[in-house]
Amino acid sequence: MIDLRSDTVTRPTAAMRQAMADAEVGDDVIDVDPTVQRLEQRTAELLGKEAAIYMPSGSMTNQIAIRVHCGRGEEFLCEADCHVYNYEQGAFASLSGLVARTIQGDSGVLRLDQVRGTVRPDNDHSVRTRMITLENTHNRGGGRVQPFENVKGICDWAKQQGLTRHLDGARLWNAVAATGIDEATWAAEFDSVSVCFSKGLGAPVGSALVGSREFIQEARRARKLFGGGMRQAGIIAAGALYAIEHHRACLVDDHTHAQLLAEAVRDSPGIDLPTPTVDTNIVIASVDPAWGTAAEFRDQLAAAGVSVMAFGPQAVRFVTHRDVDQAQIDRACQAIRTVAQKNRTSVAT
Amino acid sequence: MIDLRSDTVTRPTAAMRQAMADAEVGDDVIDVDPTVQRLEQRTAELLGKEAAIYMPSGSMTNQIAIRVHCGRGEEFLCEADCHVYNYEQGAFASLSGLVARTIQGDSGVLRLDQVRGTVRPDNDHSVRTRMITLENTHNRGGGRVQPFENVKGICDWAKQQGLTRHLDGARLWNAVAATGIDEATWAAEFDSVSVCFSKGLGAPVGSALVGSREFIQEARRARKLFGGGMRQAGIIAAGALYAIEHHRACLVDDHTHAQLLAEAVRDSPGIDLPTPTVDTNIVIASVDPAWGTAAEFRDQLAAAGVSVMAFGPQAVRFVTHRDVDQAQIDRACQAIRTVAQKNRTSVAT
Amino acid sequence: MIDLRSDTVTRPTAAMRQAMADAEVGDDVIDVDPTVQRLEQRTAELLGKEAAIYMPSGSMTNQIAIRVHCGRGEEFLCEADCHVYNYEQGAFASLSGLVARTIQGDSGVLRLDQVRGTVRPDNDHSVRTRMITLENTHNRGGGRVQPFENVKGICDWAKQQGLTRHLDGARLWNAVAATGIDEATWAAEFDSVSVCFSKGLGAPVGSALVGSREFIQEARRARKLFGGGMRQAGIIAAGALYAIEHHRACLVDDHTHAQLLAEAVRDSPGIDLPTPTVDTNIVIASVDPAWGTAAEFRDQLAAAGVSVMAFGPQAVRFVTHRDVDQAQIDRACQAIRTVAQKNRTSVAT
Amino acid sequence: MIDLRSDTVTRPTAAMRQAMADAEVGDDVIDVDPTVQRLEQRTAELLGKEAAIYMPSGSMTNQIAIRVHCGRGEEFLCEADCHVYNYEQGAFASLSGLVARTIQGDSGVLRLDQVRGTVRPDNDHSVRTRMITLENTHNRGGGRVQPFENVKGICDWAKQQGLTRHLDGARLWNAVAATGIDEATWAAEFDSVSVCFSKGLGAPVGSALVGSREFIQEARRARKLFGGGMRQAGIIAAGALYAIEHHRACLVDDHTHAQLLAEAVRDSPGIDLPTPTVDTNIVIASVDPAWGTAAEFRDQLAAAGVSVMAFGPQAVRFVTHRDVDQAQIDRACQAIRTVAQKNRTSVAT
Repeated sequence: MIDLRSDTVTRPTAAMRQAMADAEVGDDVIDVDPTVQRLEQRTAELLGKEAAIYMPSGSMTNQIAIRVHCGRGEEFLCEADCHVYNYEQGAFASLSGLVARTIQGDSGVLRLDQVRGTVRPDNDHSVRTRMITLENTHNRGGGRVQPFENVKGICDWAKQQGLTRHLDGARLWNAVAATGIDEATWAAEFDSVSVCFSKGLGAPVGSALVGSREFIQEARRARKLFGGGMRQAGIIAAGALYAIEHHRACLVDDHTHAQLLAEAVRDSPGIDLPTPTVDTNIVIASVDPAWGTAAEFRDQLAAAGVSVMAFGPQAVRFVTHRDVDQAQIDRACQAIRTVAQKNRTSVAT
Repeated sequence: MIDLRSDTVTRPTAAMRQAMADAEVGDDVIDVDPTVQRLEQRTAELLGKEAAIYMPSGSMTNQIAIRVHCGRGEEFLCEADCHVYNYEQGAFASLSGLVARTIQGDSGVLRLDQVRGTVRPDNDHSVRTRMITLENTHNRGGGRVQPFENVKGICDWAKQQGLTRHLDGARLWNAVAATGIDEATWAAEFDSVSVCFSKGLGAPVGSALVGSREFIQEARRARKLFGGGMRQAGIIAAGALYAIEHHRACLVDDHTHAQLLAEAVRDSPGIDLPTPTVDTNIVIASVDPAWGTAAEFRDQLAAAGVSVMAFGPQAVRFVTHRDVDQAQIDRACQAIRTVAQKNRTSVAT
Repeated sequence: MIDLRSDTVTRPTAAMRQAMADAEVGDDVIDVDPTVQRLEQRTAELLGKEAAIYMPSGSMTNQIAIRVHCGRGEEFLCEADCHVYNYEQGAFASLSGLVARTIQGDSGVLRLDQVRGTVRPDNDHSVRTRMITLENTHNRGGGRVQPFENVKGICDWAKQQGLTRHLDGARLWNAVAATGIDEATWAAEFDSVSVCFSKGLGAPVGSALVGSREFIQEARRARKLFGGGMRQAGIIAAGALYAIEHHRACLVDDHTHAQLLAEAVRDSPGIDLPTPTVDTNIVIASVDPAWGTAAEFRDQLAAAGVSVMAFGPQAVRFVTHRDVDQAQIDRACQAIRTVAQKNRTSVAT
Repeated sequence: MIDLRSDTVTRPTAAMRQAMADAEVGDDVIDVDPTVQRLEQRTAELLGKEAAIYMPSGSMTNQIAIRVHCGRGEEFLCEADCHVYNYEQGAFASLSGLVARTIQGDSGVLRLDQVRGTVRPDNDHSVRTRMITLENTHNRGGGRVQPFENVKGICDWAKQQGLTRHLDGARLWNAVAATGIDEATWAAEFDSVSVCFSKGLGAPVGSALVGSREFIQEARRARKLFGGGMRQAGIIAAGALYAIEHHRACLVDDHTHAQLLAEAVRDSPGIDLPTPTVDTNIVIASVDPAWGTAAEFRDQLAAAGVSVMAFGPQAVRFVTHRDVDQAQIDRACQAIRTVAQKNRTSVAT
């Protein structure tokens, strides 16, 4: 089975497993775990921030960033299709009592003119607008990279408005690979950034949140509150550290593979690409209702040995990653073409 | 000063004051206040529901309805410009931990095709969609009445989706006066309705929430939680009861007055009506930026003896009500024309 | 029926009703209601604080004080039997996410040695201790007055610990009447005080919260959040204002009446006074299990024309107030003696 | 340094590291991780429950159990010194809006007569009492085992009261080792149990929550909400699985070592044992104020090569575990005696 459901399915390599087996560890809750500490320092350094903290998931890094930035009775701005609003179970409200104000972007990409005027006036009828969060690359937007000038414009505006800025950079590594703009340059526009080690980088577990020393200290307190404090976490941190050092460079291959899949989709009848470009390792194909549903297309691809995710009634998501090689991509492209053609035939008859 | 800022500025009449002074009262927290009880029974009857409960404000009736309908970790659908999302300080999130999912309507009016597809799939990434709320008439939409067929269509769809339905009917009395469709007919589409006594009806304090007996019992518990339990509330309930019996019929005059204001706005240079129609007692005028800001227009009207509210950087709201008579409306129209003309002259020169 | 269930059952007098009927009013949400403003100024003055705010209930004033004083993730200290912990539905947790740390007092009275050592260390395992609240007089403690030297000692300690101090003074008026120590002297030990107009003072609705101007501004915002903003609230504020000016002096009569009831309890077989003294207008009698339950005693008193409240399986509460006069108290004492004696006889036989 | 601060400092053995390096893994969020699944099945089986779920920490398992058992606006009963109330940052209130009602036990041990009468009456003044939680063994109580008959009595009473029952069994393994009563027998009294792999069992990361299939499904949803979903968690689950199979039997050695430490404490001047017995692997020594503070005693022990934790102003905690052997315990006992004696001398002179 060629698994293109998500880049989260990537598994540790033998070398990464060895690094984990050999990891020096300590009690990271009452003391410090030296490997966790090294991972945090390395991540902070890469992102150009004062400090970092390792957590079990990207949902936790995002939701804790939001909670620490926004006080009680406050609101944050976000793109309507973003992960923190749609795929983290509304934790910002359910756990932290915060309001999300959504702004509809184009395939997840936001422009300055879309966010202008969204900060509420200061009166007792209104919640207080405190923060804006962007997602880069944007998952539901089909892996789109937020153009750097958009990010700069929005973050400058946000600063003027007194808003703090958080980046959900779960796949920031892909934005770097796609644009050549390094992590620290992206991060400089934000007060905090969340990055993930268990997607394209291939580590088994964890994300990190970076920011100022003071912010990370409050995030550490919040991590304890959420139950994210882990003891000898150096074991899994070693995997993340290995991934940072050895796997970032390989992401360009995933992007090349995504272009091949995109081509197969474009070529095929009954399916289409709703996003203007495929920027990174995600390809979202829309399925023509005359052709069938996303679930039907997914099931037929599965029968052909390719596993993908239905991402809505008529949308299917392909994600390339380091555990799928060129030969498998070729076979996946072939399967797409075949399945699409077959359906067309049956539709036609 | 002709006060057109809001219909909430209406004051009790001499007859209403007498009714309050004479009210029979009891301790409504540990026992029952007979006048409150009569108000609740009369309101329930008017709205065609099993039970009603009196509360100090419409924010409380709405936010308690949302809290009782939606369990922990759930979400409700609402129009993007509605009162419960924008003017109640985000209490649904701040006090009740709930997510709001906003749908952009047209001047507050929602159509079925706009709400379709907004119920989230049932999985652990997503918050659970539980309720939809409509606002009728729609304040920010310029007092628009939701067309009954839209309400019916949306509520039927919501029922099929397993969503409960709440109506923010703070100004439902106006929708009734404008359409001739009675309160109970509107209410029949919803599980709960909130109505207000201290806007156009002219009572000093309070709103009521209506619904099933079981729902109102839970709302009563929540009212205690929010601190809305009042002792000898019969005093103010008497005002509300008087308003229901004597002031509903007068709302048509407010609507007639609003048409006059709308005409003055349409006739005047530099200001315009953004909503297609003026349905009830609210007129929102947009101020041409070339002309000045909403705040400037408001200040000049104030200098001319007319008090209105800036409702955004370029929007001004006029609300007609029972404390402003025909003669005052005529003077207000004259003031609008004069101020508009004056500015035009100064712009022109 | 002689109603001794609570002093909240008191009803407005003819003069108070007239004051309400004549009240000058305004829209207290978007503007100001002049009578509400006068009540707030008078209350602040009496309590010696910068500002005050009127709210529909004492639960709201207390819970908003706690919410404003304590930030997210914080804790407050309170006596284990106090009102804010036991009779306000846990709003501090349910609406504001705060932890209560209870300290067991003696009939509600706290001593400095009982609160020492209760502030948590500052580390990521512990919630942050931020506030202490006292209740004076103490309802469940049988109307006990907190000795002034205890209050002073505890508040001095709290200040040293960096804790803010709130007084639930729903019946502070009674403490003043009982001790001759005036409102402002008590209030000077606290950052905020809640007082109630609808208990012994006899107004129909409302409580006030007093404190610094900045604190009251935040409380005003929170009142909107809770749905406690009322429009022409001057109607009921006029009742409260009248009560402050005309009814405080009468509370000593209620205390005299409570002594008569206490004597009747002490004299009677099968019931007893668990508190060492009866300080104000509340008498809690414990019912000997051999004699029966509190509910049985209550029902028999009701049959004899006296209405009281069961306050636990074996406790009955009598509250004296301005709507029960000396003659009625004499009859109530007679009823207590008769019912107690009757049961004794039936127990004996 | 002999590290007796906590049994959480235990590090993975070479064999455990090998098991982790060899672990079969999958994506436990979108699919299933086979090793995590095996761990969950094995834990459920051991505890005699239908299902189990693996989480990054014991704080998360406890707080999620409380959240799932208790609905909005509810309360749970717990012993005043327990972990969930004191050492988990008040997450039950801060994240879940719940009230804790504390009952003071004796060294953490609760008796039925202490919990009787703590369920609140059902009325709108009171929060609803829904659950009781016990801790076994009790950390702050000095590792005390809750006598099985107490547990049985309390849980039977709770069942009659309609309360659900949760066991914080972070160190239930120690209770089993100390009493010979197996895990499933203890667990049978409860609806849910939390157990920890990273304390005495020596695994690097994680705890599990067990209960009915339906309960665990809701806990899985809550785990996602809290950010506890981990991808290829099989790596660390392998360590936990190894610990369960190979390290439970060794806990008796830790208990023997604790007796030696207790003897050293009893023998030494200026320090004492406040708990009647030392049941498992925790020894809490109280430091005589005449002798000095807990912090001073800790620092002097540290200078003598023994690391312990100050557990209050006059309390020091020793925890024995698998990374401290008999020889080290002997040296630690010697250090205790020497430090105690030395201080005595200096006090005496």
